[in-house]
Amino acid sequence: MTLLDGKGLSKTIKAEIANEVERLVASGGKRPHLAAVLVGDDPASHVYVRNKVRSCEQSGFESTLVQKPDDISEEELLRVIDGLNRDEDIDGFIVQLPLPKHIDAEKVTLAIDHRKDVDGFHPMNFGRMALGLSSYVPATPLGILTLLERHGVETSGKSCAVIGRSNIVGTPISILLSRKAKIGNATVTLLHSRSQNADEILAASDIIVAAIGIPNYVKAHMVKEGAVIVDVGINRVDDASAKRGYRLVGDVDFEAVKDKCSCITPVPGGVGPMTVTALLMNTLRAAKEEIYH
Amino acid sequence: MTLLDGKGLSKTIKAEIANEVERLVASGGKRPHLAAVLVGDDPASHVYVRNKVRSCEQSGFESTLVQKPDDISEEELLRVIDGLNRDEDIDGFIVQLPLPKHIDAEKVTLAIDHRKDVDGFHPMNFGRMALGLSSYVPATPLGILTLLERHGVETSGKSCAVIGRSNIVGTPISILLSRKAKIGNATVTLLHSRSQNADEILAASDIIVAAIGIPNYVKAHMVKEGAVIVDVGINRVDDASAKRGYRLVGDVDFEAVKDKCSCITPVPGGVGPMTVTALLMNTLRAAKEEIYH
Repeated sequence: MTLLDGKGLSKTIKAEIANEVERLVASGGKRPHLAAVLVGDDPASHVYVRNKVRSCEQSGFESTLVQKPDDISEEELLRVIDGLNRDEDIDGFIVQLPLPKHIDAEKVTLAIDHRKDVDGFHPMNFGRMALGLSSYVPATPLGILTLLERHGVETSGKSCAVIGRSNIVGTPISILLSRKAKIGNATVTLLHSRSQNADEILAASDIIVAAIGIPNYVKAHMVKEGAVIVDVGINRVDDASAKRGYRLVGDVDFEAVKDKCSCITPVPGGVGPMTVTALLMNTLRAAKEEIYH
Repeated sequence: MTLLDGKGLSKTIKAEIANEVERLVASGGKRPHLAAVLVGDDPASHVYVRNKVRSCEQSGFESTLVQKPDDISEEELLRVIDGLNRDEDIDGFIVQLPLPKHIDAEKVTLAIDHRKDVDGFHPMNFGRMALGLSSYVPATPLGILTLLERHGVETSGKSCAVIGRSNIVGTPISILLSRKAKIGNATVTLLHSRSQNADEILAASDIIVAAIGIPNYVKAHMVKEGAVIVDVGINRVDDASAKRGYRLVGDVDFEAVKDKCSCITPVPGGVGPMTVTALLMNTLRAAKEEIYH
C-alpha cells in the first residue's frame, strides 16, 4: 500500500512555486498577491485563513487579510469585495465561508470578479470547468487531481465512485474525473444520500473519492482489492486520550481498508494540505494571467 | 411498454406556452422575442433554424432570423451578436452551430450576453446549472427532464447510465439527473469512449440516456427488464426503400429493446421535438425575467 502523502507533496509544490515566484520577480514581474476576507469569529475559519496566509508567505506571495466583524452588513461586505475587484495589485482573493446568516453567500460569490475568483466557486469558473475550458478549479478537487497526477495514478478507463455531491468537492471532482484529460477519462458514478446499492457500487470501483462528512463511513467490505482511495473527510471524534479531547478521522476507516487498497490518502496529511496548495496554484495562474487577461 | 411521446407532449406544451403568451400580451406585457443567427448554407442547420422559427410562430412569439454568408468575418459576427445583446426588444437569441471553421465558436458563445443565452451554452449558465442555481438549461437536457417529468417517471434513487459526455447533452444531463431536484436524485454513471464494462453498467441501470451518435448502439442484452430508455440519437442510415434513400434511427436498437423496457422515446418523435420546445420554454423564462433581471 502506498500513502498518498499530501503533506510532503504540498511542501514540494510550495517550494516549486516559491522558486517560480522568485524567477518572476527577478525578471521584473510582480509578486503574486492573494487577499482573504474573514468575517466574524468562527475559530475554524480563523485557522483555515491563517493557514492560507502562512502558505502565501512560504511561497513568497504577498498576502492581505481583511477582517470584518460578525455584524458587518451585506452591503458593506459587497463594498469590500468591490474594492478588491478594483485593486490592481491583488491577483486573486477569497471570501472564507461560512458567512453569518444575515449575509447571502450566493450574492457574495457572484459579486467576486470571476477573473480574481481563485476559489473557483463563481459560476463562470465552474461552468468553464464543466465545459472543459481553462478555469480556476475549486481548491479541493484541484488538490486531489494534483495528488493523483504526481503519484502517477492512472485514472483513464477506471471506474470511479465519488461519495457526496457538494458544490465544493463531490460535484466538481465527479465532473473533472469524467472529462477528457490526463487525470480524467474515468467512468464516474456520483453517489449521494438518495443512492441505493452504494456499497456494491463502491466495492466494484477502482477509485473511491469519499467526501460525505461521516467518520469512518467507508469500510473494508466496500473496497475492492487494489483500489485507490481518496479521503476528503476531516471529522472530529471524541478521544479522551488526545490532548485536545478529540482526534481527526476521515470518511474512510483507514485501519480497516489500508491493507486492501493500493493507495490511500491519510487523514490528516492527505487531501487537506493539498487544498491550501491548490489555492496557491490558482493564485499563481492568476498572477501570470494564464486564464484571463 | 409506454412510448415517451415527445411529439405529442411538445404540441401540448407549445399550446400551453401560446396560452400564456396571449395572457401576457393581453395584460399589457411584451410578446417574447427570439432571434436566431444562421451562418452559411449547411442544409441541416437551415432545417433546424426553420423549425425553431416555425415553433416560435406556433407559440405566438416574435422571431427574427439573422442570416449571414459563410464568409462573414469573426469580427463582423461578433458585431452582430453585440447588436442582439443591446437590442432591448429581443429576449433571447441563439447562434446556430456549427460555425464555419475560420470562426472561433468558443469566442462567439462567450460574446453572447448570458442573460439572453437561451441555448444555455454560456459558462455562466452552465456553471449556475451545475451549482444548482436557476439558469437556462441547454435545450436537449431540458427537453429530456420535461419529458420524464410529464410522463411521471420517477428518477429519485434510480441508477442511471448516460452514454456520451458532450457539452450539449451527456455532460449536462448527467449533472442534472444527479442533483437534488424533483427530476434528479438519481445515481448517475457517465459512460464515454474510454469506459470499460459499459455493457454491464448499462444492463444494471434503471434509466439509460443514450447520446453517443452510433446507430442502434444499445442492444437488448444491455437493457435491464423494465428500464426507462431515453434515446437522444438521430442517425441517418441508408435505406433504399425510403423516399429520400435514408431513414432516421436512434442510438438504441428500438425493435430489439422495446419489449424489455418500461418506457422508451421513439426516434423520430421523442427527444427531438422536445428540444425545440425547450428552447421556447427558455425564451419564455427570459421574457418573464425569471432568472435574470
